[in-house]
Amino acid sequence: MQNAKLLPQYLVSRYTGWRATTFAENQAWYTRLAEDGQRPRAMVISCCDSRVHVTSIFGADTGEFFIHRNIANLVPPYTPDGKQHGTSAAVEYAVNALKVSHLIIMGHTKCGGVAGCHAMCSGQAPDLEEDSSFVGRWMDILRPGYDRVADLPAPEQVPALEREAVMISLENLMGFPFVREAVEAGRLTLHGLIHDIGDGTLFQLDGSNGKFQPV
Amino acid sequence: MQNAKLLPQYLVSRYTGWRATTFAENQAWYTRLAEDGQRPRAMVISCCDSRVHVTSIFGADTGEFFIHRNIANLVPPYTPDGKQHGTSAAVEYAVNALKVSHLIIMGHTKCGGVAGCHAMCSGQAPDLEEDSSFVGRWMDILRPGYDRVADLPAPEQVPALEREAVMISLENLMGFPFVREAVEAGRLTLHGLIHDIGDGTLFQLDGSNGKFQPV
Amino acid sequence: MQNAKLLPQYLVSRYTGWRATTFAENQAWYTRLAEDGQRPRAMVISCCDSRVHVTSIFGADTGEFFIHRNIANLVPPYTPDGKQHGTSAAVEYAVNALKVSHLIIMGHTKCGGVAGCHAMCSGQAPDLEEDSSFVGRWMDILRPGYDRVADLPAPEQVPALEREAVMISLENLMGFPFVREAVEAGRLTLHGLIHDIGDGTLFQLDGSNGKFQPV
Amino acid sequence: MQNAKLLPQYLVSRYTGWRATTFAENQAWYTRLAEDGQRPRAMVISCCDSRVHVTSIFGADTGEFFIHRNIANLVPPYTPDGKQHGTSAAVEYAVNALKVSHLIIMGHTKCGGVAGCHAMCSGQAPDLEEDSSFVGRWMDILRPGYDRVADLPAPEQVPALEREAVMISLENLMGFPFVREAVEAGRLTLHGLIHDIGDGTLFQLDGSNGKFQPV
Repeated sequence: MQNAKLLPQYLVSRYTGWRATTFAENQAWYTRLAEDGQRPRAMVISCCDSRVHVTSIFGADTGEFFIHRNIANLVPPYTPDGKQHGTSAAVEYAVNALKVSHLIIMGHTKCGGVAGCHAMCSGQAPDLEEDSSFVGRWMDILRPGYDRVADLPAPEQVPALEREAVMISLENLMGFPFVREAVEAGRLTLHGLIHDIGDGTLFQLDGSNGKFQPV
Repeated sequence: MQNAKLLPQYLVSRYTGWRATTFAENQAWYTRLAEDGQRPRAMVISCCDSRVHVTSIFGADTGEFFIHRNIANLVPPYTPDGKQHGTSAAVEYAVNALKVSHLIIMGHTKCGGVAGCHAMCSGQAPDLEEDSSFVGRWMDILRPGYDRVADLPAPEQVPALEREAVMISLENLMGFPFVREAVEAGRLTLHGLIHDIGDGTLFQLDGSNGKFQPV
Repeated sequence: MQNAKLLPQYLVSRYTGWRATTFAENQAWYTRLAEDGQRPRAMVISCCDSRVHVTSIFGADTGEFFIHRNIANLVPPYTPDGKQHGTSAAVEYAVNALKVSHLIIMGHTKCGGVAGCHAMCSGQAPDLEEDSSFVGRWMDILRPGYDRVADLPAPEQVPALEREAVMISLENLMGFPFVREAVEAGRLTLHGLIHDIGDGTLFQLDGSNGKFQPV
Repeated sequence: MQNAKLLPQYLVSRYTGWRATTFAENQAWYTRLAEDGQRPRAMVISCCDSRVHVTSIFGADTGEFFIHRNIANLVPPYTPDGKQHGTSAAVEYAVNALKVSHLIIMGHTKCGGVAGCHAMCSGQAPDLEEDSSFVGRWMDILRPGYDRVADLPAPEQVPALEREAVMISLENLMGFPFVREAVEAGRLTLHGLIHDIGDGTLFQLDGSNGKFQPV
């Protein structure tokens, strides 16, 4: 790969600093993790957004969370068609191979992907409707959510769609036979969160009433 | 979603601690990020593995890195077929919408996905060959790499395949027209890394000789 | 300007080395910064002293810190008299135009400016009392601090005055209406540091008890 | 100062990493610098802009450059009126106390301060004309430069004014008796540079013909 460039110096400096401190302080644990393998207790599905750091929010140690991050923290419907499904592969590995106990969908406010989906579904972003738009086709997963928010007052639609991104993902998860089986056997619990990136509030979905409430 | 459960208490406790400390220390910056949007300087594609924490290694502040995480840090070939491609959507959003300057593939040692691919390609994991195996089909992306390592001595094959996961992803990236265009215009540089999770070493791919060398 | 000389060769050599390496590694990001403008998250007010390198200490990338440096890292009182106030202009630009989230006063040990102020205020440097002494008049900003340390045992006075340089600057900052407003609105946080240039320790002012403590 | 907050954690992490690496590797030199004082060979006057890092460009070690940074790298006229002049104090300290051999004015492209001055002088920024505008009053130093560029074609005016910021500062420096004396005695040389922050080019002013030329 002749296009691969060396790292910028400030990242090298930060890495060598990390190795001399955080790594050195935790070396025994890192060695153990390398030798015995990971044993995370939860899988988190979060957005790629640079403003969402689930390991920071939950003070996660190395080895605690198996984390998949994609645009808008979405899980597509179960589709075992022999094609490449990165999110479904991550869920399968977490539940079947790692046997995580929790699966957390971590949504967030001000999500660019959700805003793009809203623009697309309301006819304001024809480019996203093209077959060649990877973002548009990915956000199709959230399209059923748009129908459920389209009658709300305009300013409430995008925040409601952010909640739909979490709820539809949880619904799609239950369509995976191995997820449903683990949930019904009490080996796995599902959780839905939304993080307000500006004021820091964390909302969680209460399955008993279908509402997001502050933690 | 009646299956959504409330968070376990230890996560609630950590979150409330985070909000009283890290969030409080950074509130002004988080407010700004929420209001003005993110402007990350790099996209990182990393593995879901719980033992790989790129933000820690690089001392990254909230807002610095746009991070996609999937099994084995893979980028599939460019396939604009109107289907759902989560990784391709993330790359498209990072390069075209966020205009990141660096795109870093962050591989790691002891990767369960790579080991699975090796088992599958060497005939030791027939389950992974099933159409219904999401992990198997996802790891097909790395199958061309297996052919390049199959003649190595046995103990060298899996580590070599971990390097292939980085190199094939970089090659596939260059197949995306918008990535190639940004690289050729000098607006984007690509980087390939492998993190040894046990001893902390960071290797980087030097495009001038095609070798991974310690940073 | 007929007095302008060409750079000495060793600086030319270093620059050409920088351009071939650091610049080349970061070219995409530098181009972006030039085209889209800076968006630093913090302003740092530091001393001109050649022994204080805040970007090194904090692993800062280009674009992270907006840095003003003057003798003894001082902020004068708010004086909107239509005259030239370079420090006040820098603060105004950082807070109002760039909307930085953090404003850090970075003091240091062995500060020549602080030592000069101490000599002047204790009657040992009459030259610095002259109207024509720019250094003396600049250090007048710190004069109120001398009164607060004059009763300490002699060896403690200069170090205490170094801390006063940070605290008086923070107090003066709060006298700028736009700073106060941003702080009170939660858009800006203030920080006071002292760097021991010899042993590398970094002290930070804890507003809750008014003491400098090691980080 | 009850408003002083503790540092955000990512800065603490980077600092501890720096101390364990860069500081530890250079401890002997840092101790010497602390005990024997600084002896910089050059003073640099640079902009506060987060995109201009003179220590990086010139690979400067701790102790090499005495650096003053203000908005638009300006030196005001010599005005010994007993008022606070931070830039003049820094120049006086560098030339008279530290006896630097070089004094470098480091301008740069895309300077927000210069652009503001151009807007003000061409009547497009009445706010900057207010007595209460610290930025406006500071940029008055460059006002004489505007008259020299006002007849150029529009797109050339701001770049020309960036060059004026360097030339006027050099002229003003020669108005300081102690600078003139040091220059005429051959103890000090003056240098004028402009750094193109996007493409990395460094231009230097050639006093023999008054032109800026690439290094």
